[in-house]
Amino acid sequence: MPIYTLTVQEGLLSEDRKRAIAETITDIHVAATGGPKSFVHVLFHVYPKGDAFVGGAVSSPIVLLCQIRAGRDITKKQAIVKQCFDAILRGSGIPEGQILVVLQDVAASQGMAHGAILPEPIPEQEAEWLQAHAK
Amino acid sequence: MPIYTLTVQEGLLSEDRKRAIAETITDIHVAATGGPKSFVHVLFHVYPKGDAFVGGAVSSPIVLLCQIRAGRDITKKQAIVKQCFDAILRGSGIPEGQILVVLQDVAASQGMAHGAILPEPIPEQEAEWLQAHAK
Amino acid sequence: MPIYTLTVQEGLLSEDRKRAIAETITDIHVAATGGPKSFVHVLFHVYPKGDAFVGGAVSSPIVLLCQIRAGRDITKKQAIVKQCFDAILRGSGIPEGQILVVLQDVAASQGMAHGAILPEPIPEQEAEWLQAHAK
Repeated sequence: MPIYTLTVQEGLLSEDRKRAIAETITDIHVAATGGPKSFVHVLFHVYPKGDAFVGGAVSSPIVLLCQIRAGRDITKKQAIVKQCFDAILRGSGIPEGQILVVLQDVAASQGMAHGAILPEPIPEQEAEWLQAHAK
Repeated sequence: MPIYTLTVQEGLLSEDRKRAIAETITDIHVAATGGPKSFVHVLFHVYPKGDAFVGGAVSSPIVLLCQIRAGRDITKKQAIVKQCFDAILRGSGIPEGQILVVLQDVAASQGMAHGAILPEPIPEQEAEWLQAHAK
Repeated sequence: MPIYTLTVQEGLLSEDRKRAIAETITDIHVAATGGPKSFVHVLFHVYPKGDAFVGGAVSSPIVLLCQIRAGRDITKKQAIVKQCFDAILRGSGIPEGQILVVLQDVAASQGMAHGAILPEPIPEQEAEWLQAHAK
């Protein structure tokens, strides 16, 4: 966790742009939450032209759907949403009206990495967890 | 929002069928919710033969997973589920037993479009929001 | 339901490995929940090298995101998470630190298969439902 999945039309983002957006989203998440950088997953899901529709018509939106551990306050979550939106806007060059960002909460107790159930999103618990499991 | 993602085997749906299904799902969502048509995202995620399994065996299901804003009553949500199921059944020609439709609720307060946090799924708030942000 | 989606780098899993992992996950789900085997969907989503980032750097994680019907106790859900993690670890040969497993709950009342709203995850209701709808 978290998992940030960007669904993007083929050819829209160069490798460099993908890398820049992934780095920015990672930094945003870490700055907003204080969570471990090594937890942050950014995935691009590229679709061919013609496979996305907005308002019933073929379009080329960028959709960012992310799953984060539940328990953070809404102010932090909205900061992530807003900053990710801006990162995509600046990093992709597509119009503002083509971008959608959505954040889903998932119970930490239902996730696993390094063979261990994820810690709650509380810095002390994360530090202990990393010490114990992610050497 | 909403995001309707259809996971479909390669070659199963022609461009025309995709377009027809996307239009129908968009109309279903708008009719059931009164939400803005311009909000409706329909994405096709096409997988090669051999990448989907049902009951442990290779299969070619169509899976529709959608995220909508939380807060609507279950009757409306089940109408969406039922009508989308029927739209896929009629629009794809695959057997009924190969279709799965699932609807997830997501907090409007954790989504952003046009640079603004999404409105609650209440027609007056949506109308104000569109007026303010989606000119 | 359930939907188990494995996001995996291209070339990492042979057809045989995919099949073995899909079978194992299916068995894990059925053993842990008592749910119908025919409900279990396992989907592979394959991404090209360069489309996944962990901690801001290009990486090749396997991410398993699954949606199951809400209502099961956390012990069962954690058993699924743990066993799926182990199945991917053994079945893929990638390092433990590259695997992430996340389980989301979705209301059975918002899912449909065989043209009918899904039953609650209770064996008697499932048996009746299968009898009525999945002949």
